[in-house]
Amino acid sequence: MKSLDERKSIRKYSGKAVSNEILYSLLRQAERTPTMGNLQLYSVVVTRNAEMKAALAPAHFGQPMVEGAPVVLTFCADFRRTTLWAENRKAHPGYDNFLSFMNAATDTLLYCQTFTILAEEAGLGTCFLGTTVYNPTKVIDILKLPKLVMPVATITLGWPDEDPAQSDRLPLDSIVHEETYHDYSAADIDKYYSEKETLPENKHFVEINHKETLAQIFTDIRYTKKDNEAMSAGLIEALKQQGFL
Amino acid sequence: MKSLDERKSIRKYSGKAVSNEILYSLLRQAERTPTMGNLQLYSVVVTRNAEMKAALAPAHFGQPMVEGAPVVLTFCADFRRTTLWAENRKAHPGYDNFLSFMNAATDTLLYCQTFTILAEEAGLGTCFLGTTVYNPTKVIDILKLPKLVMPVATITLGWPDEDPAQSDRLPLDSIVHEETYHDYSAADIDKYYSEKETLPENKHFVEINHKETLAQIFTDIRYTKKDNEAMSAGLIEALKQQGFL
Repeated sequence: MKSLDERKSIRKYSGKAVSNEILYSLLRQAERTPTMGNLQLYSVVVTRNAEMKAALAPAHFGQPMVEGAPVVLTFCADFRRTTLWAENRKAHPGYDNFLSFMNAATDTLLYCQTFTILAEEAGLGTCFLGTTVYNPTKVIDILKLPKLVMPVATITLGWPDEDPAQSDRLPLDSIVHEETYHDYSAADIDKYYSEKETLPENKHFVEINHKETLAQIFTDIRYTKKDNEAMSAGLIEALKQQGFL
Repeated sequence: MKSLDERKSIRKYSGKAVSNEILYSLLRQAERTPTMGNLQLYSVVVTRNAEMKAALAPAHFGQPMVEGAPVVLTFCADFRRTTLWAENRKAHPGYDNFLSFMNAATDTLLYCQTFTILAEEAGLGTCFLGTTVYNPTKVIDILKLPKLVMPVATITLGWPDEDPAQSDRLPLDSIVHEETYHDYSAADIDKYYSEKETLPENKHFVEINHKETLAQIFTDIRYTKKDNEAMSAGLIEALKQQGFL
């Protein structure tokens, strides 16, 4: 699949509109994604309104794609629709628990990735925002998500107005384990991460941040223990608030 | 994408082997999937050995695809590799928390779905097993998954030996919300679920199970409150055991 082989995250979009026709056609095609018991445990909130994008931007740490993209899509794990269906059909739903959240989040993320692949095959550019689960209560408030609906992924979408370099990937060997998990020796780690560590842009990044190793960029700056622990607490609180814990 | 438009879960596979060449080629292509900070927070355990499949089958409630498929793939959220990398590079990782699990699970599920789409484009059949998170400790033990590695999805893979009917999907309207979440009225629920409820196979299913409504099949038989609560507790225990809680 050429669009996948050449894939890059696109953060800058042209002024060309993304029609509802193409957007809905892609969202509809993506419905073929496998789903638990064919329940389709997801909803998608489409943000086009500039004020709504401006409201969402801080939840995504002000990343400029949120306001810069013609469309922002928030993919939500949704057990509310199924629960309402059950309640309207003399059935007693029991989906206010953690397993049900994981089931719905799984459905949602699979659906989201199918959509991304279809959108990119159609020539659109996307950027996946992992920040959705960093500040979930902000997103919940802005999008007015009721109980049993939890945002798990955001994508910014538009026609590309940039052509960045493709990022590196780890050798496949480092990801695949035959029959059982084969733990990594220090030599394995050296072998698998050497390409990443010797890339000029990564060496430069280490230098300008006055760090000794590339890994320190991740542990000390991008994804720190302190931030992860604080945001874990926030995420657990949000799951309680939405009725999944 | 024709293979997606015509997609069905495949549970019966021909005797034709799935070569390592094609399997690894697809797993490698799937590495283009977006990933948090380009860390690729996933591992895949490939099961081909018949004894290993037999050991895994009970974790998946004995679904026959596990022993019947030439290949079983268990996709694992993996923060161990990144953590080892950091520890070997004078960095202090902090990924033993719930947010990091969600980040890794997200990476893993996106990767898994890209793989599924590529495999189906190549003519292979797949079945997604949601049961992975129902009995995670069994899977962890069998595949010898260390701390900070958590199984989140399983796919059975092989060349199709059946051509089942395609399952229904909800109307797109029921899934998409413009700007904010629009809650469902009883009339909305009637409208969105009527096709599903009137399908002959679903009516038959309700009848043979002596139920009054299709929703009761889900709440009383397939995904009950009691099972969900017991398995939620097991899933939380497994996350603690693997160091993510």
